Amino acid sequence: MEFGSDNTAGAHKAIVAALAEANDGRAESYGYDPWSKRAEEALGRVFGREVSAFLVLTGTAANALALSSIVPSYGAVVCHDEAHLHTDECGAPELFSGGAKLMPLSSVGGKISAALVAKTLDNLVRGEHESKPAAVSITQLSELGTAYSVAEIGALGSLCKARGLKLHMDGSRFANALAGTGCTAADMTWRAGVEVMSFGATKNGALALEAVIFFDQSLAEDFRYRRKQAGQLLSKSRYLGAQMLAYLENGLWLRNAEHSNAMARLLAGKLAEVKGLRLPLPTQGNQVFAIMPKRLHEAMLKGGAHYYAWPARGSSVEGIGEGECLTRFVASYQTTEEDVGALSHLARRLA
Amino acid sequence: MEFGSDNTAGAHKAIVAALAEANDGRAESYGYDPWSKRAEEALGRVFGREVSAFLVLTGTAANALALSSIVPSYGAVVCHDEAHLHTDECGAPELFSGGAKLMPLSSVGGKISAALVAKTLDNLVRGEHESKPAAVSITQLSELGTAYSVAEIGALGSLCKARGLKLHMDGSRFANALAGTGCTAADMTWRAGVEVMSFGATKNGALALEAVIFFDQSLAEDFRYRRKQAGQLLSKSRYLGAQMLAYLENGLWLRNAEHSNAMARLLAGKLAEVKGLRLPLPTQGNQVFAIMPKRLHEAMLKGGAHYYAWPARGSSVEGIGEGECLTRFVASYQTTEEDVGALSHLARRLA
Amino acid sequence: MEFGSDNTAGAHKAIVAALAEANDGRAESYGYDPWSKRAEEALGRVFGREVSAFLVLTGTAANALALSSIVPSYGAVVCHDEAHLHTDECGAPELFSGGAKLMPLSSVGGKISAALVAKTLDNLVRGEHESKPAAVSITQLSELGTAYSVAEIGALGSLCKARGLKLHMDGSRFANALAGTGCTAADMTWRAGVEVMSFGATKNGALALEAVIFFDQSLAEDFRYRRKQAGQLLSKSRYLGAQMLAYLENGLWLRNAEHSNAMARLLAGKLAEVKGLRLPLPTQGNQVFAIMPKRLHEAMLKGGAHYYAWPARGSSVEGIGEGECLTRFVASYQTTEEDVGALSHLARRLA
Amino acid sequence: MEFGSDNTAGAHKAIVAALAEANDGRAESYGYDPWSKRAEEALGRVFGREVSAFLVLTGTAANALALSSIVPSYGAVVCHDEAHLHTDECGAPELFSGGAKLMPLSSVGGKISAALVAKTLDNLVRGEHESKPAAVSITQLSELGTAYSVAEIGALGSLCKARGLKLHMDGSRFANALAGTGCTAADMTWRAGVEVMSFGATKNGALALEAVIFFDQSLAEDFRYRRKQAGQLLSKSRYLGAQMLAYLENGLWLRNAEHSNAMARLLAGKLAEVKGLRLPLPTQGNQVFAIMPKRLHEAMLKGGAHYYAWPARGSSVEGIGEGECLTRFVASYQTTEEDVGALSHLARRLA
Repeated sequence: MEFGSDNTAGAHKAIVAALAEANDGRAESYGYDPWSKRAEEALGRVFGREVSAFLVLTGTAANALALSSIVPSYGAVVCHDEAHLHTDECGAPELFSGGAKLMPLSSVGGKISAALVAKTLDNLVRGEHESKPAAVSITQLSELGTAYSVAEIGALGSLCKARGLKLHMDGSRFANALAGTGCTAADMTWRAGVEVMSFGATKNGALALEAVIFFDQSLAEDFRYRRKQAGQLLSKSRYLGAQMLAYLENGLWLRNAEHSNAMARLLAGKLAEVKGLRLPLPTQGNQVFAIMPKRLHEAMLKGGAHYYAWPARGSSVEGIGEGECLTRFVASYQTTEEDVGALSHLARRLA
Repeated sequence: MEFGSDNTAGAHKAIVAALAEANDGRAESYGYDPWSKRAEEALGRVFGREVSAFLVLTGTAANALALSSIVPSYGAVVCHDEAHLHTDECGAPELFSGGAKLMPLSSVGGKISAALVAKTLDNLVRGEHESKPAAVSITQLSELGTAYSVAEIGALGSLCKARGLKLHMDGSRFANALAGTGCTAADMTWRAGVEVMSFGATKNGALALEAVIFFDQSLAEDFRYRRKQAGQLLSKSRYLGAQMLAYLENGLWLRNAEHSNAMARLLAGKLAEVKGLRLPLPTQGNQVFAIMPKRLHEAMLKGGAHYYAWPARGSSVEGIGEGECLTRFVASYQTTEEDVGALSHLARRLA
Repeated sequence: MEFGSDNTAGAHKAIVAALAEANDGRAESYGYDPWSKRAEEALGRVFGREVSAFLVLTGTAANALALSSIVPSYGAVVCHDEAHLHTDECGAPELFSGGAKLMPLSSVGGKISAALVAKTLDNLVRGEHESKPAAVSITQLSELGTAYSVAEIGALGSLCKARGLKLHMDGSRFANALAGTGCTAADMTWRAGVEVMSFGATKNGALALEAVIFFDQSLAEDFRYRRKQAGQLLSKSRYLGAQMLAYLENGLWLRNAEHSNAMARLLAGKLAEVKGLRLPLPTQGNQVFAIMPKRLHEAMLKGGAHYYAWPARGSSVEGIGEGECLTRFVASYQTTEEDVGALSHLARRLA
Repeated sequence: MEFGSDNTAGAHKAIVAALAEANDGRAESYGYDPWSKRAEEALGRVFGREVSAFLVLTGTAANALALSSIVPSYGAVVCHDEAHLHTDECGAPELFSGGAKLMPLSSVGGKISAALVAKTLDNLVRGEHESKPAAVSITQLSELGTAYSVAEIGALGSLCKARGLKLHMDGSRFANALAGTGCTAADMTWRAGVEVMSFGATKNGALALEAVIFFDQSLAEDFRYRRKQAGQLLSKSRYLGAQMLAYLENGLWLRNAEHSNAMARLLAGKLAEVKGLRLPLPTQGNQVFAIMPKRLHEAMLKGGAHYYAWPARGSSVEGIGEGECLTRFVASYQTTEEDVGALSHLARRLA
């Protein structure tokens, strides 16, 4: 009954195998190995255009480095107040940018709209006394398990273009946002105005792998310097390239995401039927959020379920009553129907 | 009818004279001039104890450097969401600290309480995923014209001590908070637990002068390096020392503050009688905040009044209706009864 | 017999008077006062073209902020190994740029040549493993009292253009380099390829005043944010504008520099005749460097002369023998022929 | 004939196997997995005392983070002018420290002595105008293949203690420095005064693994925040712990190092006999440096040898003649006697 995170699962066996296979023989180091080059090309095929892609090791590094390449020290990044980069990265964007400020917006549902961003920008009228908005960052899949539609992203893209801001996407769960939508990766990103993204693989089956992908390749010109200075350039870089190739090969990444999404939908359906428990947000990826009595929550933890209460620090969910708490259940590519059955059975029994 | 800021007034003539007088002859440079040394001693007398005091040129530098000496790059500074260092310093604390994060709290009235800070700290349970709270910063006089009582500061000081945080005071209008209270500078600062403060003089009659004052002198050990690295060490440092000596001499600083406070109280009384206008906060220094119909506000500006609408970005004032706006009037040491009379007359006439 | 520094003199009385005069009445703050605007225009006239000029308070701030606007965190600044920004600014360029590296070159005489810079750049062949050269910074007048010729600057400008680097000039003693050459300020800067400079006034008669001047105005676009974030934006900014106007008015800045240069030449001539003392470098501004027996140096200090031994940390002067030391004598705009006479008399007497 | 780097070899099969094994099942993430905990304990046994050990992904990150925990933004790190952290890390120490300065010393042989450091410190007499020396960093094995003796390290440790500086060791090839000396890891580090070290594994058989080890555990208090903020905290942290356990188990790390050292000694012996080629430095680890005619160097590359010319940027090797170049040969744990034979045969044939 492990629903705590998609990080507690190991890596997919195909990816581990590819890594072991890449281990044989000697290879150029520091990003000049053939795997890394082919990984960049494979990502280009995924996105239907040439891209500049840089492999790094953690999502925090991917986000902070991507932002540092589009936001100066005196700049600001507009984001949701539950954005991972604001709440869970210990100031990494501030460090790598040399002092930029996050400008978190409050909004129900985990997403920010073009209208909200526009209104925020309109209120900044005092010039250099405030940090200068330089970028908007959205998380796709959002931290609250919701997905931006292509139209929503496009509206943000247009706004950014009009105002001279860059649009960044934190795609640590991009596969989950994309899987099963029928939409292409291109539509969901650069065609809608995204200029740079963090493309996650770790949560969806890799060992330790994220890519910073530049669709506006002019922004990528010096990124290899940033990656090196940040301590994210592996000497034996083949291990990153090999992971990415296996992750993308034959659509493994989307299959993994489809599976975890399906498990989340299954779980959402079952939880919705539990008495006293309600789902405040749609399940559009592999995360399910539920409001439940604290009493039930505690009983479930005691009963062997593993998942977390979600801190009430942001604005995404309203209407949590006294005696209630918000909880998050995350399905991974390894989650089984049995896991879902056991958890929902437990919830029904204890409710 | 100038009520826009206490920064639009020039410097007090006694301070200009002292500066001109200090200009004669040669003097040691880079902080080793006799004026700077005597200024530190004079500040010690003001605060009733030995202090380490460093003269700098702007309030932004004073705040950012003071905080950089107590907050690491991975640290967080708890403050009010209308704190000047959060809203008006273009990311200076983030720059000088190398990436620290501000943690702004919402609270009516411009002040944060020990209870609110404690609750905030209690909710941070996820270790290094969040920036580590390292300091609390309060503004005295607050940005909303309210003053912390000695007891309120003491409660924050005790909390900080218990939790291992440092307490910083942004005292850009410290004189206004102190004047007329009967309280000593010592009671309002180090005796209540403040370890480092930004002691402002510019708004209250100097040309360009702030002091970073360490009551916990062990924190000051390397501050001269920080001041130099930040470009705040004047070669002809005598001009800062001379300003400070004149500012403190014979209580000029407190007389100036008493005067501007008196003008603010006078104005508050008169504005309170204007129809359709109300004062949401007590006037405890030289700033008066008024809620008024936007129509009246615009008419007053047209009528020659100079002051500003206060942006509705923070949490300090509630209950501003549709068609209303929040406005701020600042009295300076140069404001006269005639200025107050003219402004209030205009308001009454247009209301 | 004060020859320690041009910082130990006070400010020119015309500048102090202008500051006092500007003090009357109210004025817009934070750089929007009329003095600052007129100062920018006056600087434009000095340089024979429109410029973007930002007034700041110290030379360290001017250099570090100018460089931060042209050098990224992963960048490098090529400079002389005795460059003030490398040896005397406590890491300010590194702080404001967020981690850039200085790349100091060794060269006799205090100046770097285009050939030396080219050779250095040619040796950097390992891509992102090294900081990326982004700018060249030269000091005019150099720290060793020598001046770059217009041709030398032009060669550096051409090299920078060809290699995609920016050319910065630290002009803390620019007036001394220019005075008496017959050359225009334009020839010595932007016409030779300088894109941004630190234009000093403090050492040559102001109280505390430097300007960051952009000839390539596109680089200046966001500089007001940098100035604010760095704590260099004065609220009562009129005092900077007023100083600059008085400094430039009727050529005061050049007259002051011509005077100090003349005093330095006079001193150089007299010192050259002292037995056992030799001048290793030409005197092209207001600084005289002399190699002398340590014994004589100590006797002169005891005899009442005030000046400093120059640390043997850089590459500018060779051939200092055992028992000898390098010394620096600086003439200021206040230095008199009597001062020179007294010093040289003392030297002759003790030699 | 691969002697280009110890980074071009893949990982040891035992380490890959351990990683694959650790992949099974679910595990706590973000450093709280059992492998990471056991790895810290295992490192404690290696060093004969309790240590605080943090696993990170690259040597650049290990060095820069270790230094950032002992050097403030206004601080300086004394190191050799060929130190990897100075020449090959693209400003990472400057970035993570928020602006600290490296203070590179020139010295033949790749090592700095306590006497040289002491003399350097003695020359810094101008207070805050220069960055404040806060740490000394030495590389063991040095970049030039030489090893510090325990006595040499002890002398630096004593000096640091006396002067209030911290002593850091960049141990990216620590195993090579230790193997075959009969000396203990404890003697070579904390007993000699090292307070924090970067303990490398990648070059000696791991995939991507370094540890920051604090012997002075009080310095480690907040390091987990630094690791997270820097993007070096793996979500699936088990992969780092598992690598380290396999690396240390049954002395694999020392066996690997002994092997590569033996291959380097064998190569050195054979190269010394090649006509026109000479070895300027002792071979005390797995690196051999040779001065040879450029003509021979180019012929060898054409002949299929893979290794690099060493840039003449530092002070380690003198006496390289016109027409000669310095070259580096690195043996890895995979190098065979056949590799050595083939290379030396080629050299003899072409000489």
